[in-house]
Amino acid sequence: MTPSATAQPTVAQALEIIAAENAVAVRGLDAANGGALDDAARVIRDANRVFLLGAGRSGIALQFTAMRLMHLGLAVHVVGEVTAPAIGEGDVLLVASGSGSTAGIVRAAQTATDVKASVVAITADAASAVSKLATVTLLVEAARKLDRDSTVTAQYAGSLFEQTVVTIGDALFHSLWLDSGQTADELWPRHSNLE
Amino acid sequence: MTPSATAQPTVAQALEIIAAENAVAVRGLDAANGGALDDAARVIRDANRVFLLGAGRSGIALQFTAMRLMHLGLAVHVVGEVTAPAIGEGDVLLVASGSGSTAGIVRAAQTATDVKASVVAITADAASAVSKLATVTLLVEAARKLDRDSTVTAQYAGSLFEQTVVTIGDALFHSLWLDSGQTADELWPRHSNLE
Amino acid sequence: MTPSATAQPTVAQALEIIAAENAVAVRGLDAANGGALDDAARVIRDANRVFLLGAGRSGIALQFTAMRLMHLGLAVHVVGEVTAPAIGEGDVLLVASGSGSTAGIVRAAQTATDVKASVVAITADAASAVSKLATVTLLVEAARKLDRDSTVTAQYAGSLFEQTVVTIGDALFHSLWLDSGQTADELWPRHSNLE
Amino acid sequence: MTPSATAQPTVAQALEIIAAENAVAVRGLDAANGGALDDAARVIRDANRVFLLGAGRSGIALQFTAMRLMHLGLAVHVVGEVTAPAIGEGDVLLVASGSGSTAGIVRAAQTATDVKASVVAITADAASAVSKLATVTLLVEAARKLDRDSTVTAQYAGSLFEQTVVTIGDALFHSLWLDSGQTADELWPRHSNLE
Repeated sequence: MTPSATAQPTVAQALEIIAAENAVAVRGLDAANGGALDDAARVIRDANRVFLLGAGRSGIALQFTAMRLMHLGLAVHVVGEVTAPAIGEGDVLLVASGSGSTAGIVRAAQTATDVKASVVAITADAASAVSKLATVTLLVEAARKLDRDSTVTAQYAGSLFEQTVVTIGDALFHSLWLDSGQTADELWPRHSNLE
Repeated sequence: MTPSATAQPTVAQALEIIAAENAVAVRGLDAANGGALDDAARVIRDANRVFLLGAGRSGIALQFTAMRLMHLGLAVHVVGEVTAPAIGEGDVLLVASGSGSTAGIVRAAQTATDVKASVVAITADAASAVSKLATVTLLVEAARKLDRDSTVTAQYAGSLFEQTVVTIGDALFHSLWLDSGQTADELWPRHSNLE
Repeated sequence: MTPSATAQPTVAQALEIIAAENAVAVRGLDAANGGALDDAARVIRDANRVFLLGAGRSGIALQFTAMRLMHLGLAVHVVGEVTAPAIGEGDVLLVASGSGSTAGIVRAAQTATDVKASVVAITADAASAVSKLATVTLLVEAARKLDRDSTVTAQYAGSLFEQTVVTIGDALFHSLWLDSGQTADELWPRHSNLE
Repeated sequence: MTPSATAQPTVAQALEIIAAENAVAVRGLDAANGGALDDAARVIRDANRVFLLGAGRSGIALQFTAMRLMHLGLAVHVVGEVTAPAIGEGDVLLVASGSGSTAGIVRAAQTATDVKASVVAITADAASAVSKLATVTLLVEAARKLDRDSTVTAQYAGSLFEQTVVTIGDALFHSLWLDSGQTADELWPRHSNLE
């Protein structure tokens, strides 16, 4: 069968593929991480300040998380924002890196460790450099591509991993929000009122 | 039962809630939109340039989409980037607004229409101001909250809508990618090599 | 003499033009503003948190200022950053708008006033909407274009105004820095260590 | 004389200090660089696409330049924007680094050179790693601090260098603008119309 004989997937079919892959990925998070999920939430909650860093779309995914943690009342900085200061003792760095070996992310995790900040790492490789530096590692097993012929995901590059980072971030927020005892009406006044 | 007697959801339970809500939301997209999903893909593919705009987390979700459309080889601008020029005839503006009535988004959609650019709107309200201006509307019915006591979503504010924007963007990309006939190896060289 | 007969300015000549225009603009700031310059510094210093907002290049100029105010130890947010919360009583909003009538800036200044935050406005029009809302106005007279045939500046559009915003921001910082009694070595550890 | 006996500088005095330092810095650019200033303008004008990168406030200064080059009609990308693709042959990378040895800037300049893109470097050290990789180096001699007790500038850290980058960028634009033969009315329609 030649490519031209194959009907390209419609957007509806693409939605089904993505939804199915995400369902598998999210289901695997509990088994792979156990108590680490709640450990990560606690480390974030108890930190003086939360710093977030990822490269490319992993970084965009963490901006999603950053805004909600701000709504929750935490002191939050996205690395690269002009207002982001230095990390220090008692802070936490939340990073996301599929490979766990992105050079800039590893360096940042090392710096955080050096200054006695905690590191929470979301990665698809538990044996990676970032994992070794992390206080808590959250493993996204479903997004790990073992070789070029991987049938793990039909999506392009790290899309499944990046989508899972979005979901993990929102789950961490959801748990921390309800744990905080604050109502939605108490969070709302923190939403930006100057745009 | 008092709140203090209720065990707060663990992160694993929050993941289940989010996954279940997203499964429902994505399943409803096909029924609600029919051919509009593929119309949106075609309008984006055939535009001279793609501009993306959303407020808050809807805007972050569209940055996710923007990066992938750039990887695909399209000319892409996120509104607010210092390098984003004026939109003009033959361009498309892709916006996301849960209410469909965010003032800045409506103004931008009006401007796009005035200069004869297309507008693709992702919204939870098909009768909204943005929908009325849009060339193609993509409706996210599951995220529409009809009243304060809505049981539509247990998540905070527009989270379900924003997560669905991420999924729609990646589905548009996935369909456009396979339709383009480009391999992953042909997209890869477009990834930023200066960071 | 036709344009084609005129040698275009070299970059060195352009540097001279810009330097000369800036010298005039900066010299005029003291006469135009008197004590308002130090009032602005005090309002910023004494605020709970500093928010900064400008459109286009005026906004970029204020990012310059924002980073230095962070180095000084102030709590700083650039409007539009994902981590920027709502402004409230006791905060200050620092805006820059040449015309003083940019719609989004005027709305933000109104919001700041409504919630009992202070407003410091840098503008070229002391009678503008933003000036009327401001706690302190800093007037950049040299950048005011009275008509299309203005000989005030040879530079394009608001360039002279925007350059002056950079200078004012750094002068506010310089004065606040020395006033704080902190040495350069005390500011340095606040510089981002994660990039 | 103890510090406490010294009246802190007013903002007006700080403005004078900054203006005086900038006058010296700008005056020195011509002598230090000669024809390199116009070479830089030509390299930027003739490139397929212009990429800009700086760390911290040097990066903010280059955003100032980036927006104007877009107004001029060039294809412009700020490194780090989600829409910035890979640099390639025939493109130019414009970097600013006071020390000329910032690790991320040197790596980017090396990558640009490897793919046969040009590099224009603004730096205070002509013997630096970035200078050695650059097609054209623009030297800011006045901002070079030779030792800790330098009396070169009274301002904090790299402020004088960063202010000079703003001025150089606007001078490059001014020269390229007049050279292009475009009127202000021809540039204006490129200004973002969606914000």
